[in-house]
Amino acid sequence: MIDWDKQPEREIIPGFHGRFAHSERMTFALWRLDAGAVLPPHEHPHEQVVNVFSGELEMTMNGRAERMTAGTMLVIPPGVRHEGRVITDARVLDVFAPVREDYRDGVASVLSAAMSAIR
Amino acid sequence: MIDWDKQPEREIIPGFHGRFAHSERMTFALWRLDAGAVLPPHEHPHEQVVNVFSGELEMTMNGRAERMTAGTMLVIPPGVRHEGRVITDARVLDVFAPVREDYRDGVASVLSAAMSAIR
Repeated sequence: MIDWDKQPEREIIPGFHGRFAHSERMTFALWRLDAGAVLPPHEHPHEQVVNVFSGELEMTMNGRAERMTAGTMLVIPPGVRHEGRVITDARVLDVFAPVREDYRDGVASVLSAAMSAIR
Repeated sequence: MIDWDKQPEREIIPGFHGRFAHSERMTFALWRLDAGAVLPPHEHPHEQVVNVFSGELEMTMNGRAERMTAGTMLVIPPGVRHEGRVITDARVLDVFAPVREDYRDGVASVLSAAMSAIR
């Protein structure tokens, strides 16, 4: 059993503080997001499902922006470019399938590369 | 985008009130569980990850009982027999991979069959 409070929190990109857990087929990322943080445009072969528990963010996928609040869920299909911005401090659970190997060691290579590209 | 409040709630087995959403590779089940409800022993080829948001339940897997409270997550590997009981009213998010086809139409055949077996 995993106790989320005991998982170490890491700031993957500015304002994105994440805790991670992996099952055989999925990766779970529990985020504490700071208002104003920016998720740079990127894509990955993993399907991603975004669940918002509190706060507000704007996710853009296929050129369409969606305002997400508590109790909403967004499915990002594999390979689809997406980006986002955090409107208010937020708590979010992302579920990826298959496992995000880059999150196992905290490198988050896809996001880091995307962040470098916009700097 | 899915708004959980707008998904219909169905009582799959007594005390298990669920809302369901499916992505390409996963099924998400958001449960409102009644204290005292029983999850009969069963198994399925899907990997299942149980996330407890509030309340308390006991999950037994491989003969080992685990008391789950808010902020804990349990990974049930494919094909592993499991059962549970709800200690206090609880809110839980289950994530299955691959998609639970039986939840698409609300039949939840695996659980219903398991429930019949103990009645």
